[in-house]
Amino acid sequence: MKELKGGVCAAKGFFAGGIRCGIKPSSQKKDLALIYSDKPCSAAAVFTKNIVKSASVVVSAENVKEGKVRAVIANSGNANACTGEDGMTAARRMADLAAGVLGIAPSETAVASTGVIGVKLPIEVIEKNINALKSSLRADESGNADALEAIMTTDLRKKETAVEIEIDGKPVRIGAITKGSGMIHPNMATMLSFITTDAAIDSLALDLSLRRAVKNSFNRITVDGDTSTNDMVVVMANGEAGNAQITLSESNYYDIFTDALEHVCTALARMMARDGEGATKLVTVKVKGASREDAAEILAKSVVSSSLVKAACFGADANWGRVLCAMGYSGAGFNPAGVSVSFKSGAGEIKVCDNGESVPFSEENAKKILLEEEIEIIINLKDGNGEACAWGCDLSYDYVKINGDYRS
Amino acid sequence: MKELKGGVCAAKGFFAGGIRCGIKPSSQKKDLALIYSDKPCSAAAVFTKNIVKSASVVVSAENVKEGKVRAVIANSGNANACTGEDGMTAARRMADLAAGVLGIAPSETAVASTGVIGVKLPIEVIEKNINALKSSLRADESGNADALEAIMTTDLRKKETAVEIEIDGKPVRIGAITKGSGMIHPNMATMLSFITTDAAIDSLALDLSLRRAVKNSFNRITVDGDTSTNDMVVVMANGEAGNAQITLSESNYYDIFTDALEHVCTALARMMARDGEGATKLVTVKVKGASREDAAEILAKSVVSSSLVKAACFGADANWGRVLCAMGYSGAGFNPAGVSVSFKSGAGEIKVCDNGESVPFSEENAKKILLEEEIEIIINLKDGNGEACAWGCDLSYDYVKINGDYRS
Repeated sequence: MKELKGGVCAAKGFFAGGIRCGIKPSSQKKDLALIYSDKPCSAAAVFTKNIVKSASVVVSAENVKEGKVRAVIANSGNANACTGEDGMTAARRMADLAAGVLGIAPSETAVASTGVIGVKLPIEVIEKNINALKSSLRADESGNADALEAIMTTDLRKKETAVEIEIDGKPVRIGAITKGSGMIHPNMATMLSFITTDAAIDSLALDLSLRRAVKNSFNRITVDGDTSTNDMVVVMANGEAGNAQITLSESNYYDIFTDALEHVCTALARMMARDGEGATKLVTVKVKGASREDAAEILAKSVVSSSLVKAACFGADANWGRVLCAMGYSGAGFNPAGVSVSFKSGAGEIKVCDNGESVPFSEENAKKILLEEEIEIIINLKDGNGEACAWGCDLSYDYVKINGDYRS
Repeated sequence: MKELKGGVCAAKGFFAGGIRCGIKPSSQKKDLALIYSDKPCSAAAVFTKNIVKSASVVVSAENVKEGKVRAVIANSGNANACTGEDGMTAARRMADLAAGVLGIAPSETAVASTGVIGVKLPIEVIEKNINALKSSLRADESGNADALEAIMTTDLRKKETAVEIEIDGKPVRIGAITKGSGMIHPNMATMLSFITTDAAIDSLALDLSLRRAVKNSFNRITVDGDTSTNDMVVVMANGEAGNAQITLSESNYYDIFTDALEHVCTALARMMARDGEGATKLVTVKVKGASREDAAEILAKSVVSSSLVKAACFGADANWGRVLCAMGYSGAGFNPAGVSVSFKSGAGEIKVCDNGESVPFSEENAKKILLEEEIEIIINLKDGNGEACAWGCDLSYDYVKINGDYRS
């Protein structure tokens, strides 16, 4: 697998752009993005499970159902949620506007929004600037960079990736951008991710592939259910790579593609976790030796989401008792007397708990390990072969600062 | 219902005391408490549901099973959890030591611990000081104050209450002390609560009464499952009030007693929520008009536990979108288009959302309301008669400071 530059524009036949249209008048940031394939696409998406849904989610879900989406129009600065019929009208209008300038059907267009809930989306500024948005489309790195900038909100880092793999003797590219960050409950802020690929793949295979990739990546930085009103991940595949079409009955190609898609999603998920609001470090929790994979996943997510564990990581405090406590209330069954816990980073690895009990360790060495920017908490249950990883960040003063008065 | 002073010593025939025995050598704080009735008691308790349990929980659960507990020995500075057989031996030894100096059976003694997990409890310092602990017992306010001081850890405020009611023409008293605070997930820190009453009540009635009271109070400041390794609530009833014994078949007296017990537990729960680590205000979430009471409870707890809602409360930001978002991922079903949200405090009340949509409101007035120390978020679903309250606190910089390096 080769790493590429260019994000969503790394895949052949994709264009991206972004402009400032003034959705939040007080902000000077870009706030409107467009991604577009000049060829028809297979498409798939996953959406928030929150009962309260942005109009953008409702409209995009309708359109993606047909599996033909080839353009995404996305705004930041306004979530277009909890504004009733006006919100639905605005979301449909966004799709119409993008489809109009691109000369495609509205049903080939997904709509995404992120920002404040409950404030009417000023659709007129999007109308006024839709031609400028189209003109911003470019097939190179700069187009990708503009689109990425336009979807960011409290994100501190730019999150993009792209890879090249070989399928059927042809180079196939997958590129992606994402916004969102790993918060206390990571997914309470909106997560948007747009993925492009020039693979030829039918929409059914693409849908299954995306679901597996998301389960093992984005869903490993979230607590189940803690999804915002606007979350979505959209993948579009335009077949420009010229490979024989990937289908579910061609499982070899399907597996190669899905592994690459999971790799892309995992890279973005780690970047999101690391970019948690106010975060100073990336925390990876690895659970091994669980009776089942789903138990390992529940345990890893419970530990990585514990605010006490997160605060201890911020303080570089080897407080493994909090790790066991978070495992204990996770809802997954396990034998406490079989648990070992180690902390690991570039500065070394140290075991702090074995068979559910304290083992003597050097607090000084533990501190050195936990002061690194990327740390791992490794848990072994010695009870089977179930394994899972989850990613998160520490909990710092700045989290509170950023979220204390987000709207102003 | 009359409010009394004296906490656990307000009930006739109860003694309390506390000393510093040096469990945490570096601390000068009291760390060992004793509560005792000179007459036999009926007793009941509820314990943590965490799979990882302190030895104190295991031993107390065994002893309370017989319904005769009349003494509690409790230490702070060490959780006596995750230390294997040594921990069990130490917990049993604590019960033996207390029973020995009091001249009662070990099975009449509950044991409680709070503090760091995974460090061996230095039982020898308790042995050395058990006579001093017994000598500290007093039946007045000062005994109660010493016991309370000895169980506090990161608590900033002393949490005690006592009331007097009339049953069967006799004055009956219920008193209580508690430690623990309403954190991000409130119950991830240990909560201990000891309740005394001079009511005559059989242990079966007392058990049911306690379960109802805890469900509507302490469990309304917690997220289900987020319990620490050490949580417990113990109630002891010695019959000194001389009322005709309360039983389940005597439902009138049972209801009067249970209402009073729930009142006591609710008062303590609110104090715990308000004393959240670093908290600057008490946040009450009231859900009305839900289809069922359990749905109302799930929704209220989800909103009060949302770190984004909590951070907005800290910032006095009327960010009702976060309220709807937290309702939406709670797991309880409701119709978003029927929801209204108001903020209320001593400074007034303001509706910010109606029928699931924004309503125009004065940001200035909203800020004034949210700057108060006690604020309410009132949610109406207009879907039935289900109601529930939950209590929590805001999320401040100091939360992170307190929890970043708790062990040092």
